[in-house]
Amino acid sequence: MERRNVGILGATGAVGQRFIQLLADHPWFNITWLAASDRSAGKTYAEACQWRLDTPLPTRIANMVLQPNTPEAAGPDLPRIVFSSVDAPIARELEPKFAAAGCAVISNSSAFRMASNVPLVVPEVNAAHLEVLEAQPTRRAVNGSTPSGGFLVTNPNCCAIGLVLALAPLHRRFGIGKMFVSTLQAVSGAGYPGVASLDILGNIIPYIKNEEEKLQEEVGKLLGGATADAFQPAPIIVSAMCNRVPVLEGHTECVSVKLDKPATHAEVLAAWSSFQPLHGQGLDGLHLPSAPEFPVEYAPEEARPQPRLDLMRGNGMATTVGRLRPCSLFDWKFTLLSHNTVRGAAGAAILNAEVLAVMGKFDFRAFPPLRTAAQELVTV
Amino acid sequence: MERRNVGILGATGAVGQRFIQLLADHPWFNITWLAASDRSAGKTYAEACQWRLDTPLPTRIANMVLQPNTPEAAGPDLPRIVFSSVDAPIARELEPKFAAAGCAVISNSSAFRMASNVPLVVPEVNAAHLEVLEAQPTRRAVNGSTPSGGFLVTNPNCCAIGLVLALAPLHRRFGIGKMFVSTLQAVSGAGYPGVASLDILGNIIPYIKNEEEKLQEEVGKLLGGATADAFQPAPIIVSAMCNRVPVLEGHTECVSVKLDKPATHAEVLAAWSSFQPLHGQGLDGLHLPSAPEFPVEYAPEEARPQPRLDLMRGNGMATTVGRLRPCSLFDWKFTLLSHNTVRGAAGAAILNAEVLAVMGKFDFRAFPPLRTAAQELVTV
Amino acid sequence: MERRNVGILGATGAVGQRFIQLLADHPWFNITWLAASDRSAGKTYAEACQWRLDTPLPTRIANMVLQPNTPEAAGPDLPRIVFSSVDAPIARELEPKFAAAGCAVISNSSAFRMASNVPLVVPEVNAAHLEVLEAQPTRRAVNGSTPSGGFLVTNPNCCAIGLVLALAPLHRRFGIGKMFVSTLQAVSGAGYPGVASLDILGNIIPYIKNEEEKLQEEVGKLLGGATADAFQPAPIIVSAMCNRVPVLEGHTECVSVKLDKPATHAEVLAAWSSFQPLHGQGLDGLHLPSAPEFPVEYAPEEARPQPRLDLMRGNGMATTVGRLRPCSLFDWKFTLLSHNTVRGAAGAAILNAEVLAVMGKFDFRAFPPLRTAAQELVTV
Amino acid sequence: MERRNVGILGATGAVGQRFIQLLADHPWFNITWLAASDRSAGKTYAEACQWRLDTPLPTRIANMVLQPNTPEAAGPDLPRIVFSSVDAPIARELEPKFAAAGCAVISNSSAFRMASNVPLVVPEVNAAHLEVLEAQPTRRAVNGSTPSGGFLVTNPNCCAIGLVLALAPLHRRFGIGKMFVSTLQAVSGAGYPGVASLDILGNIIPYIKNEEEKLQEEVGKLLGGATADAFQPAPIIVSAMCNRVPVLEGHTECVSVKLDKPATHAEVLAAWSSFQPLHGQGLDGLHLPSAPEFPVEYAPEEARPQPRLDLMRGNGMATTVGRLRPCSLFDWKFTLLSHNTVRGAAGAAILNAEVLAVMGKFDFRAFPPLRTAAQELVTV
Repeated sequence: MERRNVGILGATGAVGQRFIQLLADHPWFNITWLAASDRSAGKTYAEACQWRLDTPLPTRIANMVLQPNTPEAAGPDLPRIVFSSVDAPIARELEPKFAAAGCAVISNSSAFRMASNVPLVVPEVNAAHLEVLEAQPTRRAVNGSTPSGGFLVTNPNCCAIGLVLALAPLHRRFGIGKMFVSTLQAVSGAGYPGVASLDILGNIIPYIKNEEEKLQEEVGKLLGGATADAFQPAPIIVSAMCNRVPVLEGHTECVSVKLDKPATHAEVLAAWSSFQPLHGQGLDGLHLPSAPEFPVEYAPEEARPQPRLDLMRGNGMATTVGRLRPCSLFDWKFTLLSHNTVRGAAGAAILNAEVLAVMGKFDFRAFPPLRTAAQELVTV
Repeated sequence: MERRNVGILGATGAVGQRFIQLLADHPWFNITWLAASDRSAGKTYAEACQWRLDTPLPTRIANMVLQPNTPEAAGPDLPRIVFSSVDAPIARELEPKFAAAGCAVISNSSAFRMASNVPLVVPEVNAAHLEVLEAQPTRRAVNGSTPSGGFLVTNPNCCAIGLVLALAPLHRRFGIGKMFVSTLQAVSGAGYPGVASLDILGNIIPYIKNEEEKLQEEVGKLLGGATADAFQPAPIIVSAMCNRVPVLEGHTECVSVKLDKPATHAEVLAAWSSFQPLHGQGLDGLHLPSAPEFPVEYAPEEARPQPRLDLMRGNGMATTVGRLRPCSLFDWKFTLLSHNTVRGAAGAAILNAEVLAVMGKFDFRAFPPLRTAAQELVTV
Repeated sequence: MERRNVGILGATGAVGQRFIQLLADHPWFNITWLAASDRSAGKTYAEACQWRLDTPLPTRIANMVLQPNTPEAAGPDLPRIVFSSVDAPIARELEPKFAAAGCAVISNSSAFRMASNVPLVVPEVNAAHLEVLEAQPTRRAVNGSTPSGGFLVTNPNCCAIGLVLALAPLHRRFGIGKMFVSTLQAVSGAGYPGVASLDILGNIIPYIKNEEEKLQEEVGKLLGGATADAFQPAPIIVSAMCNRVPVLEGHTECVSVKLDKPATHAEVLAAWSSFQPLHGQGLDGLHLPSAPEFPVEYAPEEARPQPRLDLMRGNGMATTVGRLRPCSLFDWKFTLLSHNTVRGAAGAAILNAEVLAVMGKFDFRAFPPLRTAAQELVTV
Repeated sequence: MERRNVGILGATGAVGQRFIQLLADHPWFNITWLAASDRSAGKTYAEACQWRLDTPLPTRIANMVLQPNTPEAAGPDLPRIVFSSVDAPIARELEPKFAAAGCAVISNSSAFRMASNVPLVVPEVNAAHLEVLEAQPTRRAVNGSTPSGGFLVTNPNCCAIGLVLALAPLHRRFGIGKMFVSTLQAVSGAGYPGVASLDILGNIIPYIKNEEEKLQEEVGKLLGGATADAFQPAPIIVSAMCNRVPVLEGHTECVSVKLDKPATHAEVLAAWSSFQPLHGQGLDGLHLPSAPEFPVEYAPEEARPQPRLDLMRGNGMATTVGRLRPCSLFDWKFTLLSHNTVRGAAGAAILNAEVLAVMGKFDFRAFPPLRTAAQELVTV
């Protein structure tokens, strides 16, 4: 299979670097375009970026020249698939422009996650929501009968992704009515430079701006349903308490759930271990390259999961669950761990792209004229 | 006022060192006797102990010779007031012997906390429970009419202390029916050597043996009532999720409470700020030396409390509360911080002793004969 | 004694906060003026500053309004003593203006440390160097016979201070010809926000910009001599290797020295323990409030000094030395620890001010006219 | 090629776990025997061991039953190649017994490193020293003409390995006469449970028992020569200062060297980059599986190497060097980083075994009779 060209908006940031690391040897996608802020455009990636991952920066990427972050500047080099990891205010401005220019924008930003026509997707949980993208004006605006314009798809907040992976199997079988979640989040979730060492060395910061709100609202959209052009949030009441802890990578979450139907300890474990919704759904006989075989792994030891030991399960794409035990208030308590910059950010977007590829959403016709006004795209 | 002689069981351990630090210049108590395990008995304190606090080991203490940990070995040097910080299995064996020998044993151990005739006390919360000690057989067994024998009083688990200080003002005014609490506990709570650095550097351990159980059961006893010889636990349902984090000192707790009566944000804050139950209750015109002026301090900044910034409020004896906000499931959520080896251990026992002194419980008559069988003391 | 009014340039920064903490109850100095950048001027201190020390921000300071950082803006409120903790480029511009305006500027900045007529002083080591301030043009420029104009005095780099305290007693008795020093420096040395947590959590950064150069050149000036208007650096060859480590406060330094005259283990220890150059040198029968009784304390235990245990010796103003042992290449190896934001920054400047007070350097006459051009002050 | 059977002494410890991780898919060696202390013998590996690496414990190993640690107990199952990672006192007792029983003992222990007939080897540095094993009595004691008995080979201290890799290219070309080294060592170097978190969180411990001595003496043996039955240490004077830092894996070392012949910056870099002594020395056309292509990698960025970024270069088997700069006292200063439990322990022993395989030292004849007294083996 020929690899498709992809681009990255916000390529030098923390999540941008993860995109490059995870896409470096990707069998389906090929990075051909990297965009950055005006300050960095024109420099090579190596010049503009302080690479801070523990694998080497690929030489080909190091030598690529950063482009300005507009579709116009890209001209014919504009790839039809664009991964976005820019901050929310910038995403709010840029992402609609790229969708209007005919690109599939697969975004890790929070800007449009809750928009009424933008899918917020974790493929194992709600891949069916992706069909709502057909209702986006840029998608429909193309001349001719078959819709093939640009669109925008988002993945959730880093905490929400690991959480809904553990919740989805329970919600499908038993129904979840209420839940508490308390998080212990790694510093990498704040980007770079992010959290000052003076604030977090040997310390806890019991607050992350907007995080509790995001977590509380995204869970409902993710576990809910979708019709052709709208989402029906699941009526789950979520109460979140979010903390920053001196951990580099890996968000830990302590969860208690109230189920609609009773479930035994064994039934909960079985729901998780049998949860393989993407199994065998790949393209051309291939599995989805980034999909973990088991999206939810249960660690039976008494003091697990732990960031240091369980972070890389499923190549960083699995949620590790442990300590399933009865709750004196609700039904079941458990602890989960998720890699916040792999599964919780770049890897989530890449898996979304893989699913979109399998669904044929990248089978664009000719490039559309740039006539869809960017501001028409999103109905918030 | 003449200072009373006190002794310390388990003087070389982590909590034992805190006892020595906090009692070094205490106006009411004077350390005259230090006991340790057989291995250390006979050595000077400086020889047997690797002092690991950041204030100097007092020279007088450094030169004291460690005694065997039995009342018999102490003979006439046995102090009538003994602070105990030995591990639970050892406490189970030793503490009744010292009570039977006529000592007031003020213990930080978990061994007898839930015993039916042993007060479990945080003075600001339930000082009245101390009267139950009069029902202990060692207390009553003294010849003559006035009870003046030895007894045993305990303070709660380090997490429970900080928690009930924040809960008590709310429970008194509004009633608490249910609550969730998720903890982020410092490594010093595990003693020394305690948690291996390989297990906790940049990591989270989502499990502390027996901690959730202790927290869930101690809250009810602490917030409940007491008659002459029994306790009536408060019917509060508590669900706890306990984690170890790479913090040196200071337990952070995320709490959500369901109240019996509605309370506004301002009413909750007022309940905390006006909570001064020990105000002006000292001896001879003195305040209780270890009682913080405000046992509950509210930090209004958006990202507080933090161990690094708020640990030493009230000389480490106050609970700092912050982030009071509505809960989508219960009524109010907040975060609290408490110094786990000061307020949560040695300081708690010392404050208990100060209250006992004010109550006259240390006004022993002649030393009782050693005839009360140790095993009679405690009814579990 | 009436307390003298003092001001702080750069009052909201990390070192500025330490100045406020350490001066809050100072018996000789009284903060009456706080200056900050244009962005903060006009706000109260509490509004402009995110206080991040573990003692409370004094209420009086919290309510003070920040002033613009020029002598002109201060007008008659300009204090004659100004502590400066602004960054080097700003110090280069501002400090000469304040000296020219008649202020004694006592600076923690690196801007003028190596200037040929600016004393670089650690009082226990080279208080005599302070006399060179009389050669500064602002000092001499005053009309009339007695010099009483403004001047500029600096304290060394945070690493150099702790180091020269340990070196000075050895240099005086035995002479030091060469030395290696390898540092493990706390993150607080980089100010706030300073080092990103992503860079230092569980990591080592083996480089601190300009630090090795500063350490190598400041030692010579500090241990050298001074005549009326010039310094004679000591001919000590220093080789420094500087590292940032995940420690909050306290710089650790591993040192090996080559002595001119042989010295036994006991003689080195004696040199340190008898080093009390400021003993009894206070004002009006008072000791210098910030001077530690023993500027160099030796910790005999095998694994000391340690930041967690020894940081606060001498109220954070003493250097703790340990592990004195022979070196296979030079003569003696040892490890030292110094509090980098107390002794290494604000406390150093305050002690300089105390010595200047005792020397009568603050006995200014009438305010001089603002006619000394700022640019004349410093001869670099 | 058929894989050879190997065994592991001390299989459940920290280094034992690394042996298992690194040998799990080794093309030349096959783990068939695991030994542990009497307490663990008889249990499965999974039962006896708390696996604490971040890759899964291989199922086959998990189910293997731990054997007693004597050759006799192994009987015919005794493998001819035994990796040892037991503590020095146990190694001193056990390793000679296994060599006497006909095994090639490849040890990570410090017990016999400085013995006069035991090779201490880093293959890129002094593989020729391995020939001295032919002088060991167990080797010669075999009946018949060709020596093919058991023997003992050791690898150096974890700090010495990374260091001599960086030194060897310089010593060969320019000669090293003197050197200073200051280390910042990870906690994993102390094994498990090793360093208590209370001692190292946010702290520095400026002492590691015997570490400076080991480093100072091993460098000379490693960089020296060997004749048939003796070693000639290089006359390099080393002065070491060793510190424990709150880093999980990776020892950082700050080095200054005095060279016999002058070398420019470019010549030093060239010496490192061209250092590939094992290049193309594999077996049957294969490279040595554990040998890094470049044993010394230079990182040109200003603040490198760093544990977090450079630890896994060469799959954890390369030394990363950075910050080459002139020294005011000696010639050149630089900083290096080495993975202390891969290159510094288990990986070092495995690479030694690979070289021994290529040299034919594992071409044992029939098993020798167990008649060589263990105590004859080693001449210290």
